[in-house]
Amino acid sequence: MALIVQKYGGTSVGDLQRIRNVAANVAKLYADGNDVVVVLSAMAGVTDQLLTLAAEISHHPSRRELDVLLATGEQTTVALLSMTLESMGYPARSLLGYQAEIVTDHDFGRARIVQINADRLKAYLSQRKIVAVAGFQGRDTSGNITTLGRGGSDTSAVALAAALGADACEIYTDVDGVYTTDPNICEKARKLDKISYDEMLEMASLGAKVLQIRSVEFAKKFSVPIHVRSAFNLKEEGTMVVEEDTDMERLVVSGVTYSKDEARITITKVPDKPGVASQILTPIGDAGIVVDMIIQNTRKGGLTDVTFTVPKSHYEEALAIEQDVARRIGANQVYGDKNIAKVSIVGVGMRSHAGAAAKTFTALAQENINIIMISTSEIKISCVIEEKYTELAVRVLHQALGLEQG
Amino acid sequence: MALIVQKYGGTSVGDLQRIRNVAANVAKLYADGNDVVVVLSAMAGVTDQLLTLAAEISHHPSRRELDVLLATGEQTTVALLSMTLESMGYPARSLLGYQAEIVTDHDFGRARIVQINADRLKAYLSQRKIVAVAGFQGRDTSGNITTLGRGGSDTSAVALAAALGADACEIYTDVDGVYTTDPNICEKARKLDKISYDEMLEMASLGAKVLQIRSVEFAKKFSVPIHVRSAFNLKEEGTMVVEEDTDMERLVVSGVTYSKDEARITITKVPDKPGVASQILTPIGDAGIVVDMIIQNTRKGGLTDVTFTVPKSHYEEALAIEQDVARRIGANQVYGDKNIAKVSIVGVGMRSHAGAAAKTFTALAQENINIIMISTSEIKISCVIEEKYTELAVRVLHQALGLEQG
Repeated sequence: MALIVQKYGGTSVGDLQRIRNVAANVAKLYADGNDVVVVLSAMAGVTDQLLTLAAEISHHPSRRELDVLLATGEQTTVALLSMTLESMGYPARSLLGYQAEIVTDHDFGRARIVQINADRLKAYLSQRKIVAVAGFQGRDTSGNITTLGRGGSDTSAVALAAALGADACEIYTDVDGVYTTDPNICEKARKLDKISYDEMLEMASLGAKVLQIRSVEFAKKFSVPIHVRSAFNLKEEGTMVVEEDTDMERLVVSGVTYSKDEARITITKVPDKPGVASQILTPIGDAGIVVDMIIQNTRKGGLTDVTFTVPKSHYEEALAIEQDVARRIGANQVYGDKNIAKVSIVGVGMRSHAGAAAKTFTALAQENINIIMISTSEIKISCVIEEKYTELAVRVLHQALGLEQG
Repeated sequence: MALIVQKYGGTSVGDLQRIRNVAANVAKLYADGNDVVVVLSAMAGVTDQLLTLAAEISHHPSRRELDVLLATGEQTTVALLSMTLESMGYPARSLLGYQAEIVTDHDFGRARIVQINADRLKAYLSQRKIVAVAGFQGRDTSGNITTLGRGGSDTSAVALAAALGADACEIYTDVDGVYTTDPNICEKARKLDKISYDEMLEMASLGAKVLQIRSVEFAKKFSVPIHVRSAFNLKEEGTMVVEEDTDMERLVVSGVTYSKDEARITITKVPDKPGVASQILTPIGDAGIVVDMIIQNTRKGGLTDVTFTVPKSHYEEALAIEQDVARRIGANQVYGDKNIAKVSIVGVGMRSHAGAAAKTFTALAQENINIIMISTSEIKISCVIEEKYTELAVRVLHQALGLEQG
């Protein structure tokens, strides 16, 4: 007898047959005596269709109204799932974001949950009802509909699990868990049984694309254990995303990830004075461009080179900004490169084990892969390399760090 | 400078181009200095698509969940219209039924409005915003989404006009007003400039299909003048549905309507005792079948014949019920007929002018059309005839009652 929050993604509810499969899975859990809250995404493709419709109206559609439009997607799936459960003889009720009192800030399109009042939800559960909650959506304190950004249903599920004190939060998706690396690139990639929140945060932000990063932050903050698993293979366990434990530390590294979405910009021979990094990077931030890695090397003669990475889609814009900046601060030259990639190794074991960095650099050197930039954190080492070596680098690091054995 | 509520039906918002046309019409009114509230239906066909989807899940889908599903239709159109207006530079905000605080009873699928709290709407108007309200939907006092039944957006518009004390309520639809009869049957049908609430109620319930009947009841109760007009011919005035005035009484009859949706059931030689009509009709009501006309004739010998009409779709069911009843009460025989039609003349002028009944019966007799049943009210005379004569009857009555001249 437990309280379980389950979340099903867009492909899991992509048509009526799949919704029936979800209903059967939910009903089984309920029939075993558990209380069940189901969080749903929109049917696969629906959100994109609605975005296309809005784009036909305006290049910059009203963000408030876009959220009203997008919210219809999850409204449809929770109604259909509840109907299906009711037609099977199970008592089910849908709740939209505002009805579940998922209160957010006012930032339409990427709102953050600030509070959940779960009274109505708890009342339904105490009446032994299955509750289907529309993911991805909430309301702000003025009563406007808000949405939480792509993947926001994950965050809805984790936040509800936290608010309800649920025993488990199961995220059903179209992959069967978190892998040591991308199985499309490295056939020896292995599914992890468990991973810590911090590792998952580094994996997700580096492109693992399994969970919305904010949901992991939420899970970490409220210690909600997440079980990421496949909606299409219900018998197999997925990956647990949980608090770090000593067991995890035995492994030095949990995964190798990569990103091809960044570009590099370098300004050379910058007069090396206090405040110069700010002069270089503030205009980029003001333009709404997110900088990832930043590296500053000292040269002789009071000069320095500054290199940073930006999303590829903002490369030309950032380059133009820095050409202005270079003139103003008297730098020598601005140049950049879009043909780069970032490969990273992630693992909480790096906190207590040395040697992962050396293994990384050696493995890349043995394949003659030049490292253009290096950036490290407590549990991550990232290397920027030439894009063409991405797949090779992922495979050699996966092997060199012993991820094949687990 | 007036406060205008406009309602646009499903065909008027059937695609993005039509939504742009609506936006242009709204913007013009707003730019002239008026406050504008726009009530929208779902895009044409959408509600039926959603009903089909629900029918694939269950023959009797949960009514609560069906309302959640159907409510997405208007949610989509109000978001799209508001986006369109905003992209044109006009300040617009959508409000769903619950956000506009349209409070209804708990009768999912055919809820009745019990109260509107228009504070939020008024606040937007005082900020000179155009407000697009989702028609057809509200919320009950428990916060569940409800819908008002087919054509419910008309009622939403009239109720909002009443709550706001609007100067006018314009219903844009795919016909250009209320006609003296069906123009598809009688080419001499003429558009009426105005019609009283009571006449409209009789016309609507008899099949004029221009306005949801409940919206007319609402308009009558709160004295809201309705202007029914075409969304596709914005220059031409439609028909005003208003309080009865002396001018209207000059005309004896305003229209001729017909219905082919009924069937007739007769029970013969019923022992004529007090309570017998109740014995005959209560089981029909208990089965949820609506009876329209009821006629009882006295025979000799303490026996009577009772005839009534029911919707054609419930004919077989009603016939079976009455066969049981006949056995129980000792009646002679039950028989019926599905090949009937009802033609009616409607007019407030009948209150003060005699002769309309005589003209009606004479006109039908001259064409050898036999009258099977007659039923009259203060402002209406209905005759049941053989179905095959329907069109002919409509044309001869239209001419005999002088409706061609106006």
